[in-house]
Amino acid sequence: MRALQVHLPQDEILLRPRSAGDESIRYAVVWKQPPGVLSGLPALQAIFSLGAGVDHILADATVPDVPIVRIVAEDLSRRMSEYVVWRVLDHFRRGCTYRRQQAAGLWNERAQPGAGEITIGILGLGELGRDAARMLRPFGFRLAGWSRTERQVEGVTTYHGQDGLHACLAASDILVVLLPLTPQTHGLIGDDFLSRLKRETPLGRPILINAGRGGLQSDSAILRALNDGRLMEASLDVFEREPLPKDSPLWRHPQIFVTPHAAASSEPEALVPLIAAQIAAHRRGEALTHLVDRNAGY
Amino acid sequence: MRALQVHLPQDEILLRPRSAGDESIRYAVVWKQPPGVLSGLPALQAIFSLGAGVDHILADATVPDVPIVRIVAEDLSRRMSEYVVWRVLDHFRRGCTYRRQQAAGLWNERAQPGAGEITIGILGLGELGRDAARMLRPFGFRLAGWSRTERQVEGVTTYHGQDGLHACLAASDILVVLLPLTPQTHGLIGDDFLSRLKRETPLGRPILINAGRGGLQSDSAILRALNDGRLMEASLDVFEREPLPKDSPLWRHPQIFVTPHAAASSEPEALVPLIAAQIAAHRRGEALTHLVDRNAGY
Ligand SMILES: NC(=O)c1ccc[n+]([C@@H]2O[C@H](COP(=O)([O-])OP(=O)(O)OC[C@H]3O[C@@H](n4cnc5c(N)ncnc54)[C@H](OP(=O)(O)O)[C@@H]3O)[C@@H](O)[C@H]2O)c1
Ligand SMILES: NC(=O)c1ccc[n+]([C@@H]2O[C@H](COP(=O)([O-])OP(=O)(O)OC[C@H]3O[C@@H](n4cnc5c(N)ncnc54)[C@H](OP(=O)(O)O)[C@@H]3O)[C@@H](O)[C@H]2O)c1
Repeated sequence: MRALQVHLPQDEILLRPRSAGDESIRYAVVWKQPPGVLSGLPALQAIFSLGAGVDHILADATVPDVPIVRIVAEDLSRRMSEYVVWRVLDHFRRGCTYRRQQAAGLWNERAQPGAGEITIGILGLGELGRDAARMLRPFGFRLAGWSRTERQVEGVTTYHGQDGLHACLAASDILVVLLPLTPQTHGLIGDDFLSRLKRETPLGRPILINAGRGGLQSDSAILRALNDGRLMEASLDVFEREPLPKDSPLWRHPQIFVTPHAAASSEPEALVPLIAAQIAAHRRGEALTHLVDRNAGY
Repeated sequence: MRALQVHLPQDEILLRPRSAGDESIRYAVVWKQPPGVLSGLPALQAIFSLGAGVDHILADATVPDVPIVRIVAEDLSRRMSEYVVWRVLDHFRRGCTYRRQQAAGLWNERAQPGAGEITIGILGLGELGRDAARMLRPFGFRLAGWSRTERQVEGVTTYHGQDGLHACLAASDILVVLLPLTPQTHGLIGDDFLSRLKRETPLGRPILINAGRGGLQSDSAILRALNDGRLMEASLDVFEREPLPKDSPLWRHPQIFVTPHAAASSEPEALVPLIAAQIAAHRRGEALTHLVDRNAGY
C-alpha cells in the first residue's frame, strides 16, 4: 500500500472500501480478496491482480464486469524460469538418486543421458511457459509445448487442444506445468492424464513438475502414479490445499520435492510500479494491457 | 579400444605395449596409466589423454617428452556446464533449506535474492570455465573469473595471478572451481583460501562448488569452514581420495552435496573420434591441437 502511494501520490489509497457501495473507488488492486468485496462499487473501472494468475479473483462470482488486469513482469518470468531450469536439471542430473546414494555412503556413478535425448513438455505456452522454453533451449533439450490456441514458439514443437494434449504427453520425458487454473484446466493432472505418459524414458520413467496451480492436479493421483511407477519423480510448488496440510503424505514421499508456492514470488514492491503505470495510462485514455479474457478464464 | 579400431581401421591397437621398449607404438591413448608404462617407447610420437585433465599423466615423472594432447569436447563442456548451472541454482534457490523444511513438514517461504544481487566467481577460465560463464550469463548473475594469465571473457570481470585470486574471492558469493591440478593449484582450497571469502552474502554465507580436481582442496579445511560458518554449503564432485572413503565425514554433512566424480563424464565413444581425427591429422603432417604446456602443468 505504501509503495502504491509513492507511485500515485495524488490518489487516496484505501485498504478496503469505506462502505458497501463506496462511490470513491475507481481502481482495485487485489490478491485473494474476500468474496463480495468488489461488488456494488459504482465507480470501479478496473481490477488489478497482484499476481500472474487471476483464478483467485474469478473464484468470486460477484466480481463486477470491469476489465481485469494481470501481472506480466520480467522479474516474475525470470524467477519462474530459474525454478523450472533448477527442477529440470535436478531431475535430469539425477539429484534424487545421488542424494539417496550420499545418505547411504555409496560412490556409484549413474548412466547420464545427453540433454538431446530428453524431451521436455511444457504445458502452457504463455508468458511463463515461453520464457521457460527460452531458458531451457541452450541446454540442448528437445522441447514440446501445449496451449489452448495454436501457437508458434521458436525451438518448440507445439500442440494444442485435447488431441494435442495426448500427443504432447506421449512425447514428453519431463513435464513442466505452467497453466492457469480455469474451469477447463481444473483437475487436469489426474489419473487419465498420468496414464497417458510414456512407459519408459531415457531417465527411467516420466517426471512431473507443477508450478502452475494446485487446483490443476489431484495430489492423490500423483501419489498413485509415483507408487505404481507411472511417474518416477515430481517437483511440486503448488497443492490442492495450501499450505500443504501437515499430515499430507506428499511431505514424506522420497520422490517428491516440495516448495511452499515459492517458484516465482516477486516482491509487491517490484509489481506495484507496473500497476501504477497502467492506472496512469488508463487515466490518460490509453488502453490497459494484459487483460484477462473472462470467457477463457485467464 | 573397439571404438578406436573402428576409427583407425588400418592400425593395430594394443591394450598395453607388447614389451618394454616396444618399437611399434607411435601413439598412446591413456587414462591413469601405470607409472613407467610410457617410458622407453622409442617410436612414441604423442600421448592422448582420455579426459580434459592431464594431472594423471604428468603425475608419472617417467612420461617421455613427447607432445601431450588433452580432450576438448563440446559434449564434455556441455555436461560440465549442466552440472555448474544445476549446483548454482540448487544453492541459489535454497534447495538445501527447502529439503530440510520438507523433511520437517514445514511450509515456510524463504527470502530469495535476485540473481543480479549474486556474484559467481569462476576459478579457471579455460574451456570449461568459459562455457560455464556462457551458460550462467542468461540468468542474470554477476560473474567474476580467475585465471593464471590475463583473460578477457564476455560478461565476466576477470582477475589473474595471486593478488587477483584474493580480489576474486572477496567479490564472490558462490565459487565455482574449474581449475586443473598442477603443482601451483595443489591444495589451493585450504584454510587461507577459505578465510579470504566474504563474511556475508545475500544468501547468508559463501558457497563452494568444486568440479576441478580433489587435489585442489583440503577436505578437512572445507569441513572446518562449514562448521565455523565461513562457508554455508558446498557441492563437491571431486575429493582428495576417490572413491571418497566410506568413513569420510563429508558423506554425512548436511550442507555438503556429494557426487562421485560425475560432473562431466563423456562416454569414451564420444571422445575416441576426436582422438582418431587428431592422429590422422598428425600423420598428414598437420599440427596437433589442445597441447599441454608441461611447464604450466596443464
Ligand atoms: N507457482 C508460482 O509461484 C506461480 C507464479 C506465477 C504464476 N503462476 C501460475 O502460472 C500460470 C501461467 O502464467 P502465465 O503468465 O504464463 O499465463 P498466460 O500468459 O495467460 O499463459 C497461459 C497459457 O496456458 C494456456 N492455456 C490456458 N488454458 C488452457 C487450456 N484449457 N488448454 C490448454 N492450454 C491452456 C494458454 O493457451 P493460449 O496460449 O492458447 O492462450 C497459455 O499458453 C498463472 O496462471 C499462475 O497460475 C504460478
Ligand atoms: N569433475 C569432472 O568430471 C571433470 C571433468 C573434466 C575436467 N575436469 C577438470 O577441469 C579442469 C579444467 O578443464 P579445462 O578444459 O577448462 O582446462 P583448461 O582449458 O586448460 O583451463 C584451465 C584454466 O585454469 C587456469 N589455471 C591453471 N593454473 C592456474 C593457476 N596456477 N592460477 C590461476 N589459474 C590457473 C588457466 O589459466 P590460463 O587461462 O591463464 O591458462 C585456465 O583458465 C581439468 O583440468 C580437470 O581437472 C573435471
